Amino acid sequence: MTFLSRVITEGRDRLGPVVAQRQAKRVDFPLSQFGLRERNGHVTDAHGVVLRELVDEFGSPLHVVQADALRRNAAAAMAPSLARRGADVFFSYKTNPVPAVLERLHRSGMGAEVISAYEYWLARRLGVPGHRIIYNGPAKSAESVAAAIEDEAYLINANSVGDLASITAQAAAVGKRANVGIRVALPGMWAGQFGMDSGSIDVLSMVREARLSADLNLRALHFHRGITMRRIDEVEEYLDDILRFVDYLGAETGWFPEVLDVGGSLSCPTTSGISTKEFRLNRALGTDITPPDPRDCVTVGQMAEVSQARIHAHFTARDIPVPQVVLEPGRALVADTHFLLTSVLDVKADGDITHLVADAGTNIAESVTNEFHQLFNLSNMHGPAEDAYRIAGPICTPADVTYNNWRMAKPAVGDVLAIMDTGAYCIPFSTSFSFPRPPIVLLDAGRTVIVRRGETFDDLVSRDIDLRVDEPK
Amino acid sequence: MTFLSRVITEGRDRLGPVVAQRQAKRVDFPLSQFGLRERNGHVTDAHGVVLRELVDEFGSPLHVVQADALRRNAAAAMAPSLARRGADVFFSYKTNPVPAVLERLHRSGMGAEVISAYEYWLARRLGVPGHRIIYNGPAKSAESVAAAIEDEAYLINANSVGDLASITAQAAAVGKRANVGIRVALPGMWAGQFGMDSGSIDVLSMVREARLSADLNLRALHFHRGITMRRIDEVEEYLDDILRFVDYLGAETGWFPEVLDVGGSLSCPTTSGISTKEFRLNRALGTDITPPDPRDCVTVGQMAEVSQARIHAHFTARDIPVPQVVLEPGRALVADTHFLLTSVLDVKADGDITHLVADAGTNIAESVTNEFHQLFNLSNMHGPAEDAYRIAGPICTPADVTYNNWRMAKPAVGDVLAIMDTGAYCIPFSTSFSFPRPPIVLLDAGRTVIVRRGETFDDLVSRDIDLRVDEPK
Repeated sequence: MTFLSRVITEGRDRLGPVVAQRQAKRVDFPLSQFGLRERNGHVTDAHGVVLRELVDEFGSPLHVVQADALRRNAAAAMAPSLARRGADVFFSYKTNPVPAVLERLHRSGMGAEVISAYEYWLARRLGVPGHRIIYNGPAKSAESVAAAIEDEAYLINANSVGDLASITAQAAAVGKRANVGIRVALPGMWAGQFGMDSGSIDVLSMVREARLSADLNLRALHFHRGITMRRIDEVEEYLDDILRFVDYLGAETGWFPEVLDVGGSLSCPTTSGISTKEFRLNRALGTDITPPDPRDCVTVGQMAEVSQARIHAHFTARDIPVPQVVLEPGRALVADTHFLLTSVLDVKADGDITHLVADAGTNIAESVTNEFHQLFNLSNMHGPAEDAYRIAGPICTPADVTYNNWRMAKPAVGDVLAIMDTGAYCIPFSTSFSFPRPPIVLLDAGRTVIVRRGETFDDLVSRDIDLRVDEPK
Repeated sequence: MTFLSRVITEGRDRLGPVVAQRQAKRVDFPLSQFGLRERNGHVTDAHGVVLRELVDEFGSPLHVVQADALRRNAAAAMAPSLARRGADVFFSYKTNPVPAVLERLHRSGMGAEVISAYEYWLARRLGVPGHRIIYNGPAKSAESVAAAIEDEAYLINANSVGDLASITAQAAAVGKRANVGIRVALPGMWAGQFGMDSGSIDVLSMVREARLSADLNLRALHFHRGITMRRIDEVEEYLDDILRFVDYLGAETGWFPEVLDVGGSLSCPTTSGISTKEFRLNRALGTDITPPDPRDCVTVGQMAEVSQARIHAHFTARDIPVPQVVLEPGRALVADTHFLLTSVLDVKADGDITHLVADAGTNIAESVTNEFHQLFNLSNMHGPAEDAYRIAGPICTPADVTYNNWRMAKPAVGDVLAIMDTGAYCIPFSTSFSFPRPPIVLLDAGRTVIVRRGETFDDLVSRDIDLRVDEPK
């Protein structure tokens, strides 16, 4: 036994009873938090669809989208009162680029925030007009920038000096003025490859040159915190930093933006990042990870309201025209609209820790490794949660563990687990590593619709050409 | 300025000259290490194909496979002298499941090591007969196990008590004996979800039951270290651990395996994991990461030879029939047969560190983040490598950095970089996150063949059904 494993074992022996006592009842979100309920011993959605039966019909694993939740989130974010006051919302495509999801968000009037030629194409393919698209990112292709200028995109946010030069060149070639913003990275935000360092003199020269350019219509400043904000005071502090920079830039250049794009970075009420300490305690000692308080989580509507109010007050106090406020949420709009059903393939009890092998792992649910995600065993909701289990996925790497220790009633092969809040990043970060990607079904008012079929084995070699190329002589 | 950034800045100022002096010349592998050369100012392969021009023809980014390297690695691993002495090799499909690669390995007579129903299907689809397939992993489907039994697969290695029971049930249903092994995890190997804990009494009962079962033909023990071995003494120690366990098991049960499957876990000569210390120094201070010594790296042939010799000696000394030795290498066979071409989209110099934005990042080259991979700027091979650059990929996350600091001659937009040794895990771990996956071309004796076409935008929504589902009334 190594020193480390001895320490852990001793720690377990000593702390075990304390941990067990503290956690006699594990803290779970109620089903109702997710619009689910129990009826006749089955977990169903609000319209009576039995979740467990979905895997019988569509296979396992299975991504499930709740249309109710999508509508609820979209409607709250696009409240007419917010729009009247000059706050607008563009959904971050990269978070969940599934057409059925995007379509439903766009129906609320929401715009598209895209970061690649593909995402730009997808927005147009879904019928989003140019004036409802914001094009961001460090890797815009020249062709897609030209298309965005041609389509009079709402904003093309320049990520760097080079990016602005490239947009200018495309605008000259197209013969139309490009609506541009400049992305600025303030201390405490994502920086590096993203946006102009706020302390760089290049920001000032970019503003001056863009204002003089006959090819550009400089409209906006763009900010994106990156690090998630959950509390309203974090949002307020973030906005204050932005407004200080706007004042500085105005004093230096005489220019104020007509659009203030404050990005995304909001949380999902029922997920949260796991701290290093919590992660280690959970992994080594099996202590439960505490779920976040869903009530303390800033919503898109709240951020829009606070941003609009604060920006309005700031600009009117200085007698400067108040800019349009733009938000680019992703996670906050979609994370809690999906869950992932996965089946228990094996219960393996030969080591210190009993492992469940599930048919979904980090290959299709990477985010679950470092965030709290409620898990339900749909096949055994009420047994006493006496023991903790390590839940591994199907791919052959020890990193394929979604839950290091999750206390639950004794599971069995064939049980169906629901991993909640998988609507953000799980699908776009999916791989086809050894296992094809699963279908996505949408639950809508009692109807169940496949919106993306699962990959077949043939799909996985469909781009392979001439499987049997001759050897050269 | 935060405390941390002050420490780093001060460290840089103080250490800067020392670092610069120590690294006046950066240590690069010569082009010849990769079968490349320079001619008339262009980097070409051995047959004169100009690498830079490949992106003009096939687009950027681009995966490139060198058929010469594949043949060389396969031939060395499948040397007739090794086969005569009872050593056999099965390629780990998950490492690189590209049919054009697999086909070429199989031509040498190599078998297939698969870990999923899909990989089993793929091996059969490529014409590999059952007796040249080993089926491993914690997540075998019942249907694929039945197929493997029907096809008389060489080995189906049981990962757990439950897995063995499931194989037994399938064998009974098919009406054929399954050729099985039992995967055992010794201390220092991957364990957890993988294989039976060697200290568990369940291993003994599994052996006893499997021997008695009319549905099973217990042939093998299976081991897989997981943690990469580079030196021959590591291999020898690993084998000694295995042989001690074989003796223990023999003493307890009277059974000795007729096949000893010792797995993979060999390294690639020109890559190696980056230590935490090296990683931090490189990230914070820009010190170069030292390339590994390619001569000290155990090859598949060497491991086969050492394994066969050691196992032969061990068994003959005990007067027990010598088992067939089986290896399951992945990385060691394919890592150095691929490289990835990527273009510089932007050179962004507004912050402390100049960032290159490349069109390939962690989305298609995840392994590069924690391994040494030689990088060449094909567009500027000979300028003085005075400054270090941080190389970011195209996707919008700060984690999309392939090289934290790589010293190179002053790069420019449009330069084409070659990231070497991308043949292991880069392709299967690829995502379509915001950017379609690139094509794969094969260089073979001066010919250039697309073996997998790139994803199109349409491909990325090809599984989306009925993009415009009506809202329910």
